[in-house]
Amino acid sequence: MSVTVFSSSEKEEKRRHKESKLIQQLEKQKQKKEEENKQQVQQEEKESKGRLYTLSVALPGSVMDNAQSPELRTYLAGQIARACAVFCVDEVVIFDELGEDAKSVEGEFKGIGKKGQACVQLARILQYLECPQYLRKSFFPKHQDLQFAGEYENLIIDFISLVCHSKCRQVCLLNPLDSPHHMRIDEEAEFREGVVLDRPSKPGKGSFVNCGMRKNVQIDKQLKSGLRVTVQLNKCQNKEGKVYKGVVVAPHVPRTEAGLYWGYSVRLASCLSAVLTECQYKDGYDLTVGTSERGNNADHITLPAFRHMLVVFGGLQGLEASVDADENLNITDPGVLFDLYLNTCPGQGSRTIRTEEAILISLSGLRQKISAVFPDQSKG
Amino acid sequence: MSVTVFSSSEKEEKRRHKESKLIQQLEKQKQKKEEENKQQVQQEEKESKGRLYTLSVALPGSVMDNAQSPELRTYLAGQIARACAVFCVDEVVIFDELGEDAKSVEGEFKGIGKKGQACVQLARILQYLECPQYLRKSFFPKHQDLQFAGEYENLIIDFISLVCHSKCRQVCLLNPLDSPHHMRIDEEAEFREGVVLDRPSKPGKGSFVNCGMRKNVQIDKQLKSGLRVTVQLNKCQNKEGKVYKGVVVAPHVPRTEAGLYWGYSVRLASCLSAVLTECQYKDGYDLTVGTSERGNNADHITLPAFRHMLVVFGGLQGLEASVDADENLNITDPGVLFDLYLNTCPGQGSRTIRTEEAILISLSGLRQKISAVFPDQSKG
Ligand SMILES: C[S@@+](CC[C@H](N)C(=O)[O-])C[C@H]1O[C@@H](n2cnc3c(N)ncnc32)[C@H](O)[C@@H]1O
Ligand SMILES: C[S@@+](CC[C@H](N)C(=O)[O-])C[C@H]1O[C@@H](n2cnc3c(N)ncnc32)[C@H](O)[C@@H]1O
Repeated sequence: MSVTVFSSSEKEEKRRHKESKLIQQLEKQKQKKEEENKQQVQQEEKESKGRLYTLSVALPGSVMDNAQSPELRTYLAGQIARACAVFCVDEVVIFDELGEDAKSVEGEFKGIGKKGQACVQLARILQYLECPQYLRKSFFPKHQDLQFAGEYENLIIDFISLVCHSKCRQVCLLNPLDSPHHMRIDEEAEFREGVVLDRPSKPGKGSFVNCGMRKNVQIDKQLKSGLRVTVQLNKCQNKEGKVYKGVVVAPHVPRTEAGLYWGYSVRLASCLSAVLTECQYKDGYDLTVGTSERGNNADHITLPAFRHMLVVFGGLQGLEASVDADENLNITDPGVLFDLYLNTCPGQGSRTIRTEEAILISLSGLRQKISAVFPDQSKG
Repeated sequence: MSVTVFSSSEKEEKRRHKESKLIQQLEKQKQKKEEENKQQVQQEEKESKGRLYTLSVALPGSVMDNAQSPELRTYLAGQIARACAVFCVDEVVIFDELGEDAKSVEGEFKGIGKKGQACVQLARILQYLECPQYLRKSFFPKHQDLQFAGEYENLIIDFISLVCHSKCRQVCLLNPLDSPHHMRIDEEAEFREGVVLDRPSKPGKGSFVNCGMRKNVQIDKQLKSGLRVTVQLNKCQNKEGKVYKGVVVAPHVPRTEAGLYWGYSVRLASCLSAVLTECQYKDGYDLTVGTSERGNNADHITLPAFRHMLVVFGGLQGLEASVDADENLNITDPGVLFDLYLNTCPGQGSRTIRTEEAILISLSGLRQKISAVFPDQSKG
């Protein structure tokens, strides 16, 4: 009769073996799922005539406080807007890294005005630049259209100096985005941004929209005047008619159905964690990237397939400061927040890269990697 | 007896066949030589403790005229300087794309001052920023140190407003390069930039140099006072001594022997072709890259090995305008001037990318490709 006796260390060994096998199995399952997901996402992109994935960028509004003059503050916002347009960014999220209780001691670096103004000012300049020129007089700076009612008074001051006098210096400082949805008056286009006009139309006839063309556009629906809408113009137009005809579509349609870059939306977040948790996409961001000189060398990675990618930048003190200020986060290393934490400029010849530089540098590096994920996709 | 008769088309065919064989042979030889060159260059880089290759950037001074205010003109120069430092650029070449006879009609966009001022101003601001802070009072703005004697008077005006009052707004606009050769006073370093002092030393004893440390450095040579020198400090120093000891080395030594980024030199060129023909490196640039949205998709290329790479940017009107203005060039397509002509931002979401943006975007994309050529090289 043979009795098998396990010593306690042998038992332990067996347990470990089982455990590591289980982990291996789970890893394999995860990989398989990722592979399937990748194939599905890539297949969908391939079959679509447009671009299905989105790219979001997040940064703290505090970057505005690094500018050394009011002119440069405005200019900096313009630089950020342009960087986002050049790389076809679909959403810009501006988060507050100062937090409710932040008592800054660096008073001399701040512009006049209260906490939070930097975020709102950056957001408004981004929105202003994204708006097609012919719509600006409808949306800026009429009071009722200022979304951020709480910051109302500061904004009036900002926007009187920013917008009212088209020849004033502030406006001249802003370089135009020149993105494809900023149409010239006689440009022929399938899609156009417009504003619903306060002009009565017969019941069942649909509202009139100013799309920056020589005639207005009559759409298929009755909508409240003052709304900003994306219009798909009918293929055949009656050239003698008093108006053009078109239908209202969701703002993502030019991108998802025609592969056009159609500007970005702007979102404010109260802290870094809210950037991730308050995502506008149904299933959230499925690829999040943090950026830092202390991240992993970006040259060594390839991106997985994704639908909604988010790239997060820090301010003067890096993402560490944003994590520190965030009451919802009990971590110190920002790296654990993201799927990838990347150094996008290994071997940098300056001790520090400014956020506005890092956006261009990082998105340029990541653009190549995104192209590799979606090889059938070079539609902008 | 069989007579072989060739019809004239058969002869032609044969001739073509021969020719194409010859071309193939030449191609093979060329490829072999390139392969050998590549292996040699890569081997040399691998064996060196430093970085042997160099990166040069060229751009027209006319970019300065796009700035919308004097402040932004200065700021733009600072942006360009920083972009070059971040990507460890060793040489910046500023070329005049307006030419001698250019009669510009766009008077309202120009600052006051005469033709060519843009090039000189950009060059001087680049030099100013490259110079370690502790040496600036020695080199700026003393008249005898202004290299560009012809432009003398404009420069005095520029530099009085730029440099004299350290608190004046112009200086505040310039973000520091923060590159490794900008040492802090107590930083320990093998190499330092310095200025030879006007302080007599005994014959055979070597001059004294201010290297921005608490004591001066006595070097191995007698040099003319006022010279800017690169000093290698001795490993062992007598801590009680009144001076440190060191030797003068060529400015490339920190790079070639220790892999340190050591700032850039600045060169003026009278036209685009002079950028290429007046190269400071003995055998010229062996890899030249032109940049344009009409270039080839940069994602599809890998770089060959090189020793001296040059990346050329255009101004507001692109490199086409620079080629047009250049009397030495009888071409219209800038692409034929360069080994590679690259679109470094395929799918751009803005109709046009500004030169200062294109530098960051292009160098970020090319940095990855340079790393792939020199995988043993990540020394900055
Ligand atoms: C001024 S830098 C922050 C510097 C800060 N002292 C630090 O150590 O993180 C501002 C932001 O630029 C981005 N950044 C700077 N260098 C980077 C690099 N090499 N790779 C990726 N992102 C970088 C990061 O998002 C960073 O938070
Ligand atoms: C304002 S752009 C020139 C635009 C000009 N209208 C043209 O069509 O070339 C200034 C410079 O930025 C660089 N640049 C702009 N877009 C680029 C791209 N997609 N790829 C590479 N370089 C680009 C080029 O050096 C160009 O000469």
